[in-house]
Amino acid sequence: MEAQSFHDLFVDQLKDIYNAEKQITEALPKMVEAANDEKLREALEHHLEETHGQIDRLDRIFEELGVPAQGKTCKAMQGLIQEGEEALEKTGGPLGDVLLIAGAQRVEHYEIAAYGTARAWAEELGLDDAADLLDETLDEESAANEKLTSIAEGGLLSEGVNAEAKAGRE
Amino acid sequence: MEAQSFHDLFVDQLKDIYNAEKQITEALPKMVEAANDEKLREALEHHLEETHGQIDRLDRIFEELGVPAQGKTCKAMQGLIQEGEEALEKTGGPLGDVLLIAGAQRVEHYEIAAYGTARAWAEELGLDDAADLLDETLDEESAANEKLTSIAEGGLLSEGVNAEAKAGRE
Repeated sequence: MEAQSFHDLFVDQLKDIYNAEKQITEALPKMVEAANDEKLREALEHHLEETHGQIDRLDRIFEELGVPAQGKTCKAMQGLIQEGEEALEKTGGPLGDVLLIAGAQRVEHYEIAAYGTARAWAEELGLDDAADLLDETLDEESAANEKLTSIAEGGLLSEGVNAEAKAGRE
Repeated sequence: MEAQSFHDLFVDQLKDIYNAEKQITEALPKMVEAANDEKLREALEHHLEETHGQIDRLDRIFEELGVPAQGKTCKAMQGLIQEGEEALEKTGGPLGDVLLIAGAQRVEHYEIAAYGTARAWAEELGLDDAADLLDETLDEESAANEKLTSIAEGGLLSEGVNAEAKAGRE
């Protein structure tokens, strides 16, 4: 058992998240391409841009801590993305859209949990700048998740992707 | 590409969740054993009991739908659990507790996303009894997640596991 400090664990969390975000930047363009609903495609494109900004924030935190910005393979994200891709191979159209949303919301929730942990640890460690940066990203992830719910369930401008899938409409 | 209906996708979601819950019932006893903080151990034990009840609810939904209660390997949950186990091999004591909480909250968030999707789809499909059962579980998962946050950050009765980890106290 290696001797580790709470600070070491915090750096490990950042490495896990950094790798997860990198995986997401590779998965999102395929999801954008697969999306049928225009609002869903736009939401995924917007989140891809946001993700690049989130990686920049992580780079800034690594720099502040004086450790190399380096990821560590996030197996959970690998599983999440693989599952999403396999599900999409089976279907397309509105049914594909509900699967895209289901997969993307699992990814968002992974990030909400991971950033929530990292922010709490940064606060505990007195790393206030890092905590603020992680908090900004956490807000974006929560908003992205809510946006997906509203696209699935329908808002003011749409019946929602779930209803489209049920109706079997293209 | 197989022809699939929205109803088929709903059954697939249930199979994914069913397998994920079964994996969790195997992982939780090891997490209980590894826990250092008494409140954390109790919370994990309580969630193990809840998980058995959640599997019973899924059994009832499968029965209602007239399909065999059968899981389909949830790769995301495999990744989540494997990551958690590997992290724990490196440390113990209060530092192990914060890792347990970090891992458990990722698992809870997976379930919140998955049950949220399944409940929305059940509602869309007019499967009201299933939607109600999924909603009960969703409430339990959210409460379990909040409980873990309060144990990590400290509530009325404790300074919190994060502070213990920082202080390096046993």
